[in-house]
Amino acid sequence: MPETLSQALAAALPTVLDELAELVAIPSVAAKPDSPMTLCAEKVAELYRKRGLTAQLVPTDGGPTVVYAEDRSAGVEAPTVLFYNHYDVQPAEPFALWESDPWILRRDGDFLYGRGSSDDKGHIACRLLALDALKTLHGGTLPVNVKVLVEGEEEVASVHLVDWIERHRALLAADVTLWEFGGVNAAGQPELICGLRGIATFELRAKTIAHDAHSGVGGTILPNAAWRLVHALASLKGPDERIQIPGHYDLALPATPADLDLLAQLSPELEADLRAEFGVAHFLGEATGTELHRRAIFEPSCTINGLWSGYQGAGVKTVLPAEATAKLDFRLVPDMDPEVVHQSLCAYLADQGFSDIEVVYLGGQRPGRVSPDHPLIQLAAQTAEAVYGTPASIVPLSPVTGPVHPFAVGLGQPIATIGCGYPGARVHAPNENLRVSDLLRGAEHTARFLMALIK
Amino acid sequence: MPETLSQALAAALPTVLDELAELVAIPSVAAKPDSPMTLCAEKVAELYRKRGLTAQLVPTDGGPTVVYAEDRSAGVEAPTVLFYNHYDVQPAEPFALWESDPWILRRDGDFLYGRGSSDDKGHIACRLLALDALKTLHGGTLPVNVKVLVEGEEEVASVHLVDWIERHRALLAADVTLWEFGGVNAAGQPELICGLRGIATFELRAKTIAHDAHSGVGGTILPNAAWRLVHALASLKGPDERIQIPGHYDLALPATPADLDLLAQLSPELEADLRAEFGVAHFLGEATGTELHRRAIFEPSCTINGLWSGYQGAGVKTVLPAEATAKLDFRLVPDMDPEVVHQSLCAYLADQGFSDIEVVYLGGQRPGRVSPDHPLIQLAAQTAEAVYGTPASIVPLSPVTGPVHPFAVGLGQPIATIGCGYPGARVHAPNENLRVSDLLRGAEHTARFLMALIK
Repeated sequence: MPETLSQALAAALPTVLDELAELVAIPSVAAKPDSPMTLCAEKVAELYRKRGLTAQLVPTDGGPTVVYAEDRSAGVEAPTVLFYNHYDVQPAEPFALWESDPWILRRDGDFLYGRGSSDDKGHIACRLLALDALKTLHGGTLPVNVKVLVEGEEEVASVHLVDWIERHRALLAADVTLWEFGGVNAAGQPELICGLRGIATFELRAKTIAHDAHSGVGGTILPNAAWRLVHALASLKGPDERIQIPGHYDLALPATPADLDLLAQLSPELEADLRAEFGVAHFLGEATGTELHRRAIFEPSCTINGLWSGYQGAGVKTVLPAEATAKLDFRLVPDMDPEVVHQSLCAYLADQGFSDIEVVYLGGQRPGRVSPDHPLIQLAAQTAEAVYGTPASIVPLSPVTGPVHPFAVGLGQPIATIGCGYPGARVHAPNENLRVSDLLRGAEHTARFLMALIK
Repeated sequence: MPETLSQALAAALPTVLDELAELVAIPSVAAKPDSPMTLCAEKVAELYRKRGLTAQLVPTDGGPTVVYAEDRSAGVEAPTVLFYNHYDVQPAEPFALWESDPWILRRDGDFLYGRGSSDDKGHIACRLLALDALKTLHGGTLPVNVKVLVEGEEEVASVHLVDWIERHRALLAADVTLWEFGGVNAAGQPELICGLRGIATFELRAKTIAHDAHSGVGGTILPNAAWRLVHALASLKGPDERIQIPGHYDLALPATPADLDLLAQLSPELEADLRAEFGVAHFLGEATGTELHRRAIFEPSCTINGLWSGYQGAGVKTVLPAEATAKLDFRLVPDMDPEVVHQSLCAYLADQGFSDIEVVYLGGQRPGRVSPDHPLIQLAAQTAEAVYGTPASIVPLSPVTGPVHPFAVGLGQPIATIGCGYPGARVHAPNENLRVSDLLRGAEHTARFLMALIK
């Protein structure tokens, strides 16, 4: 019988790894219409039921189902923790760049490869492993009340989650939300992220003529959809990176002096690591040091995610394209609002003479964050240091996006980013991976944080 | 024994149709590496040898072989005509849109269907039929010296033809070149085209970072290849359609008053036909009438043929692309030069701060034309009217491209577009076809024009 947390984790690990492989084998790509989302939700529910939680699939209003599970046997006097995770994953494309099948979890030493191995099925496994170890150490019960919300469309902007949370406020009430990600930074420090940016995503579509034309015949007389799209895009942001939509920066709160202090404490190696990973000599705006972090996190962005028109094969095809499309995302800092961005983008394009460009809003999320001084952030920093043996890095705002607003602002709950990720995890990219050692440490931290809540 | 040209053509027709079927049955697609190019060249040589010409396969420097044939028995005092044709064809894809096998010539009333039935095996048949009829009427001999050049890579920009012609200038010397196409326009008038535009084709490639990044992490600090490409393209041409490369228009000769007179005589229905086909209310620059024709033909163009970067699937993928590519063609009017365009494009992009954009030159052709007043153009107009019973339409320059420069400028020979095409021939498209009546009229015009040369 294992007597220490480490022993309990080690004993439970083999089964959890098998369960993670089962999750990875289900290609639950929310972006693709025929993905087996419900199958994956059922699997997640089954894994929580195995741990004694009640678990059910609760439908959203048009999106993939939410898995809700709970074990409230710790009683009304005990603290309550909400686990937030997601069972959907990014598309695996481009397949050719994967070193093994993205839907078969492959172990190579400390590394587990597969789509979702980290984001976010690895983090689901991290919570399961923590519950297993806690129950082993506590005679088959949990020391705190646990609620679990696992959604199925985080990778497509959690479109239906905000309403779902609003309709289930009482069900979700907790003292703290354990976020769907967490782990160590490039310097090996456990990272506590106090908030996430928001996002607004769009498709811009140009259609100029009934069908593609011969470029010899039409080049100077027929409107070319690719040129139309290029000019519309160029009007949004020039090489100076400043977004040209009027008022776009008005709601963006600048970093506070306390935020800048925290950014200054971030590892100085982050910069060199980014340079090495992406092979760049200079960052945009020649930013370095704290300014690089400030720019990456506190500056609103406008990114072309994809672009296509006309002929993409080998050699020459002298075609004049009838259609052209771009995908765009805007990252938003507190207190920007994706609905406002949608309206002002449409108004701006029309004003610039591009009312023929169709703007399709693909969804958005509001930004949100908690004060870095919140007592539970400070508690997590203490437990992190105990597990990892090094002080936690507190990040005032993450550059990435997640549905933090309905939790941190809507439910008014602090979030703690306790997890098993690391910077080499290649989330969203080919060869996504999880280190088994990170899985163990993330589960240990999950368990220790839960135990610390009752002290 | 046939006594008139019409009778002679009718007598020779059945054999020539069989020979055309043999040519169509050889899938000589220059764009595909394994196509039976030499087999097709041998067949063409055999057909000319049957008519008493000497014929041989003369290699190019790396491309498909050229077929050269001649019959100089008319003697040194007689005029010499050069037939220029090509035995290669466009790919037949998409096969599903063909109503019958593209490689089996199918007759349906006046129509012959098959890949190459018009472009350009039909025109080879047109010349063979004309030679048959001429020999019948002239006691087994030809009234003029005939030289024949049939190349095998016209559909892939005649890459090796310019050098080949340069090396065989003496061999090819003639009074006039009968061009590889010709026939009637939408109004049924025989069309004499005095020249063709040139072209320069490129791929522009942006590569900014080692691999795709997460748009949340990189949006404001990592250079995005799609944005780089959009800004580079936007620097080439704005919504006003003016190409911004310095000096780009310097070598472009404007339409002369005589050219404008000829354009004004083009069918007024062309404009309504273009509006209907492409569903456009306005052409670029609001051009109409003669100005529409002038703009379509005499204005240099810059067309985006294709564009791609990042994620092109359904829904959202928040990726920051490492690579982005565009295909471009520039149509050139006399006396522009694709090599000059290549150099000035590279210099301009570098000057605009886009030296990181790789410019790949995919090949080009120089424009070329003959004066509409040239006596042999005027002679062709007379013979055309005699054959077709309606005045010829003289087009000062065609908007499309072909290897006219090495003939019209390199060899200094006028070109005459005498042939068997019509606007419904669907060249380069599924269900390409030839009308037998056009084949007969094209051969009659070929024969009459050759006879007229000796008067």
